[in-house]
Amino acid sequence: MLPDRSFFDRLADAAKAETLPRFRIGTSVVNKIEGGFDPVTEADQSAEAAIRALIEQNFPDHGILGEEHGNVGLDREYVWVIDPIDGTRAFISGLPVWGTLVGLYRNGDAVMGLMDQPFTGERFFADGAKAHYRGPDGDKVLSTRACDTLSDAVLFTTSPHLYTGANKTRFEALQDKVRLFRYGCDCYAFALLAAGHVDLVIECGLKPYDVGGLIPLIEQAGGIVTNWQGGPAEMGGEVVAAGSAALHAQALEILKG
Amino acid sequence: MLPDRSFFDRLADAAKAETLPRFRIGTSVVNKIEGGFDPVTEADQSAEAAIRALIEQNFPDHGILGEEHGNVGLDREYVWVIDPIDGTRAFISGLPVWGTLVGLYRNGDAVMGLMDQPFTGERFFADGAKAHYRGPDGDKVLSTRACDTLSDAVLFTTSPHLYTGANKTRFEALQDKVRLFRYGCDCYAFALLAAGHVDLVIECGLKPYDVGGLIPLIEQAGGIVTNWQGGPAEMGGEVVAAGSAALHAQALEILKG
Repeated sequence: MLPDRSFFDRLADAAKAETLPRFRIGTSVVNKIEGGFDPVTEADQSAEAAIRALIEQNFPDHGILGEEHGNVGLDREYVWVIDPIDGTRAFISGLPVWGTLVGLYRNGDAVMGLMDQPFTGERFFADGAKAHYRGPDGDKVLSTRACDTLSDAVLFTTSPHLYTGANKTRFEALQDKVRLFRYGCDCYAFALLAAGHVDLVIECGLKPYDVGGLIPLIEQAGGIVTNWQGGPAEMGGEVVAAGSAALHAQALEILKG
Repeated sequence: MLPDRSFFDRLADAAKAETLPRFRIGTSVVNKIEGGFDPVTEADQSAEAAIRALIEQNFPDHGILGEEHGNVGLDREYVWVIDPIDGTRAFISGLPVWGTLVGLYRNGDAVMGLMDQPFTGERFFADGAKAHYRGPDGDKVLSTRACDTLSDAVLFTTSPHLYTGANKTRFEALQDKVRLFRYGCDCYAFALLAAGHVDLVIECGLKPYDVGGLIPLIEQAGGIVTNWQGGPAEMGGEVVAAGSAALHAQALEILKG
């Protein structure tokens, strides 16, 4: 039996109980590290442990790929892909654009996914067919928006400094063609794309858990996520997400080199 | 008689009624402009009009410096400095790090100030003596944090692309020395500094209304805001805000050239 929305809600709530009380605790993380206590690492590890405990209890025959506590059974039919806090730099800075990501892969395809932002109270969830939002904007089914031209597009990337060599050249060529670009939002940018507020998200150097929970959100909202060669993005690496097929094709033309 | 907190709340509520319903309306701003309707400009203009109406009604002998509707009586003892939506690019992108800024200057000094983020429900207010926060983190008096060394500091700036020439060299020299830097938060970064979550905010090319509402928040929370030469920041330009005097001095040493 596959998990339902209420199970994903339990995962998000369990993670939130570990992350939110450690967000904006008001002292320098540096000092905390020197004092032997790092609230981000604590939140990361304890949130993943809480998520894994629920999965192991309810789906003992599933595999788990997690950022903090290693991998189990990656060759099983179903594998959970977990990033307890995506956007640790945002978390450290008090900026509410980090998120808890949980994806469910079936034979390597991301089929269900969750992104939860506890501070703003926004939860994005893909159930296998549709992508849903619950938060200050209400309860709704998500759809990407129909922006078909790079010159009209709003682009997000985490940081221009992450690109080097040929990737840098290609990324900058793309950045030069869009209407508006912004830096620094990690998973929140992908969620905004699923919700139809931005048109393109470009990243490089992603791990599977950075994107596993997000692929179903975007695909089931009508968008496309691939790597820069047009192949599957489930294993991370260089990733391009677009709200429309036309925009994805135009971006890929530049990114694949 | 000077305004009190409840008057600033009325200003913030009046602006919120114009901005929030036009945030994340889900269609491309480009298409809206082509169709003769631009939700950001509408929100900007109507929010400032609402704020100005309340000021004119309650403080008819005060001056007003506004982004959208021009200036009145800038030589008067009290002048209100208004940016109805600071961070229009964030607003366009669906990212809740824009804000409504209102500052009150007395003989050119910023003495009271407000930053309101309606989507997250966060309101930052400086009453002339102390800086206050109301929102998901509770009700509290704000204080900056004691980070005294650049190598420990978290730095925000809106975009590295805004710096050119000598400013670019100086900004990059500073950026190279900090522990963590992030891009793209406009007024929200200054508010996080007042709240003790980040240590430095560096900007260039600011208008008075980009910073007027924020200076009192930072100063009354224990921080320092000046231009890159160490002079007053009330007229904008190149601005450096720091959570501690030691950090401000170290940043200024690099920025003043």
